[in-house]
Amino acid sequence: MKKYIENVREKSPIVHNITNYVTVNDCANIVLACGASPIMADDRDEVEEITSVCSSLNLNIGTLNSRTIDAMLLAGKKANRLGHPVVLDPVGAGASSLRTKTALKLLEEVKFSVIRGNISEIKTLAGNDGATQGVDANVADKVTDENLDTAVAFAKAFAQKTGAVIAVTGAIDIVCDSEKAYIIRNGHPMMAAVTGTGCQLSAMTAAFAGANKEDVLGAAAAAVCTMGLAGEIAHERLGPMDGNSSYRNYIIDAVYNMTGQQLEEGARYEVR
Amino acid sequence: MKKYIENVREKSPIVHNITNYVTVNDCANIVLACGASPIMADDRDEVEEITSVCSSLNLNIGTLNSRTIDAMLLAGKKANRLGHPVVLDPVGAGASSLRTKTALKLLEEVKFSVIRGNISEIKTLAGNDGATQGVDANVADKVTDENLDTAVAFAKAFAQKTGAVIAVTGAIDIVCDSEKAYIIRNGHPMMAAVTGTGCQLSAMTAAFAGANKEDVLGAAAAAVCTMGLAGEIAHERLGPMDGNSSYRNYIIDAVYNMTGQQLEEGARYEVR
Amino acid sequence: MKKYIENVREKSPIVHNITNYVTVNDCANIVLACGASPIMADDRDEVEEITSVCSSLNLNIGTLNSRTIDAMLLAGKKANRLGHPVVLDPVGAGASSLRTKTALKLLEEVKFSVIRGNISEIKTLAGNDGATQGVDANVADKVTDENLDTAVAFAKAFAQKTGAVIAVTGAIDIVCDSEKAYIIRNGHPMMAAVTGTGCQLSAMTAAFAGANKEDVLGAAAAAVCTMGLAGEIAHERLGPMDGNSSYRNYIIDAVYNMTGQQLEEGARYEVR
Repeated sequence: MKKYIENVREKSPIVHNITNYVTVNDCANIVLACGASPIMADDRDEVEEITSVCSSLNLNIGTLNSRTIDAMLLAGKKANRLGHPVVLDPVGAGASSLRTKTALKLLEEVKFSVIRGNISEIKTLAGNDGATQGVDANVADKVTDENLDTAVAFAKAFAQKTGAVIAVTGAIDIVCDSEKAYIIRNGHPMMAAVTGTGCQLSAMTAAFAGANKEDVLGAAAAAVCTMGLAGEIAHERLGPMDGNSSYRNYIIDAVYNMTGQQLEEGARYEVR
Repeated sequence: MKKYIENVREKSPIVHNITNYVTVNDCANIVLACGASPIMADDRDEVEEITSVCSSLNLNIGTLNSRTIDAMLLAGKKANRLGHPVVLDPVGAGASSLRTKTALKLLEEVKFSVIRGNISEIKTLAGNDGATQGVDANVADKVTDENLDTAVAFAKAFAQKTGAVIAVTGAIDIVCDSEKAYIIRNGHPMMAAVTGTGCQLSAMTAAFAGANKEDVLGAAAAAVCTMGLAGEIAHERLGPMDGNSSYRNYIIDAVYNMTGQQLEEGARYEVR
Repeated sequence: MKKYIENVREKSPIVHNITNYVTVNDCANIVLACGASPIMADDRDEVEEITSVCSSLNLNIGTLNSRTIDAMLLAGKKANRLGHPVVLDPVGAGASSLRTKTALKLLEEVKFSVIRGNISEIKTLAGNDGATQGVDANVADKVTDENLDTAVAFAKAFAQKTGAVIAVTGAIDIVCDSEKAYIIRNGHPMMAAVTGTGCQLSAMTAAFAGANKEDVLGAAAAAVCTMGLAGEIAHERLGPMDGNSSYRNYIIDAVYNMTGQQLEEGARYEVR
């Protein structure tokens, strides 16, 4: 895992983010923490130009609206033409038809390098597609050791279908392409009490992919390990009066201080 | 006060927020801190659907614009039809005619469970209404022990008029319906040096109301006590180098760690 | 430098900000930290009214869009008519033609009291103008001791052209009008790892200018010294587990705690 984060720190890729206004500041700071540079720009009159000077693109549909949906499509297509890795975070797909439709439209018109979401969001995207529905039907709402085989098969099938690396994150994370899956067991349950840890991970995944274009699967797995390990380190640091707000800061701090060696030793994963 | 916060932690209601982009991240984190789940969504094409899967709705007019005003009206009416508690935070009512008009329009078209603001904002809303103008004229710009009786009478009259619980927050807080008022003396003056403590309180009030629908008055009073007590606990925690930014984190941390027992013992209020 | 910050704390000016959604919360908290009060409002239907009740205006083009560009023009012209200091932060000018064009249009239609950006942004604005192109051609992309004379001459020429105080910030900061330049050497390189320290400085500059209208050059220099010194104090405070997120909080905390005496003693500048 070491080389992926070291590449980010060495190359310092610029990451274009079109993301929600809830967690955007944390996304910018975590991109800086891992050694990359964020640019946020969501106006249709500038997104193509902005994405051209970047190494990768992160599209996050939280707090989407008609103005930003258009900008996402334009930026995504431009990034495709330039060969830049593009990450999709389908926040809340399934919670409203606007979000589901938007995510599906993005999937149709933009080729994604990585799609990162929780199991429910990923199932929503896959379930609206005939080809994977059969698999989907068997996938539970939470990835556990008991249903892991089914979940991995589901994620691989969706990777096959989309051509993207699929990152299903939760208590156990699955990061896979159609053939190879990383099963990752870093992280801490308290991360769910911090708003936007998922958004932050997607932004950081775009940074890792931008600095490791030749191996996006490994890069995405390394980003997921980095985030989870940061969550563990930050949790150990918590004092008796600390809560979710200090935890938010400590997670980003832990990414800032993470060395390649620390990631190598702390990453807990197996490959299937 | 104990049962109200314990109900939030037990039921973990989902709170739909249409709020300003200045303090939205803190609103999300404080909703998580008290045990509920936030969803932020402000596009008119999804707000009705989103609010349908939630327990309560928080409408905050800071950084309003024509797009979000429409979304607030749609979401508010939908929440009314579903019987969900709806909170109004009329940020800056009185500071511009757009804000005053928008707040009044919301009051006209949406039935609110709780209206929370400072005395100036609440006076603006009440003062534009013939029925309460007489009372309003006697209310000072700051609630003090000297003018408390008048302020309570004013708030009760506005509660009578609107059918909402009125929460007037400041150095002394008044939370009342038309008959019963909680006079609350928790909090610390330094909270005014943190942007958005009012917005955070409104979001948390929606969480408390969503988990205590049968007693919104008590729920709103408990939310106000929780915020104020968190402000006190966080203030005691401040070290010599800490300022308003660390204080912001400590307040949310204190909410995260607050137990029912702690709230019960720390809440300082009387009922009139 | 002492008197400038003391005036902010004494007068507590209200600062109207039309700024990006990435760093807006930090801008609000740093404005509070220095003793002023922030208002964020960006709808064209209210910006003129809002800016009328304020002491100064801060226009920041990060995450600009057609809606907010119009609002900036309206607010800027109104502030001009009222004689309020107006600060421009041309975030990303040069990175897209929309940003460059918008910054130039603002420069054309609004009279700015202070323009604050990095050398690349300021060069973009100046370079698009025939009168200063000659000077611009000789300015490097980073202000160093070696090219300082040229950079100061460039900034003074741009100040002459625009009538604004020019603040070029980086490792060495230049704050000047057409005749007098402050060369400031406060700050720490790690500030670049926190998103929005430039935005925060611009917001704080508007606060300082609003409280020191009779001497905007001195006020802007004092704001730059305050930010840099806060960055130094915050850096000394960092523990081994702290990273850029805690650093963000510590910088704002340091502004909150900064006394006039501390600024007087810690400001490191010369006048040319």
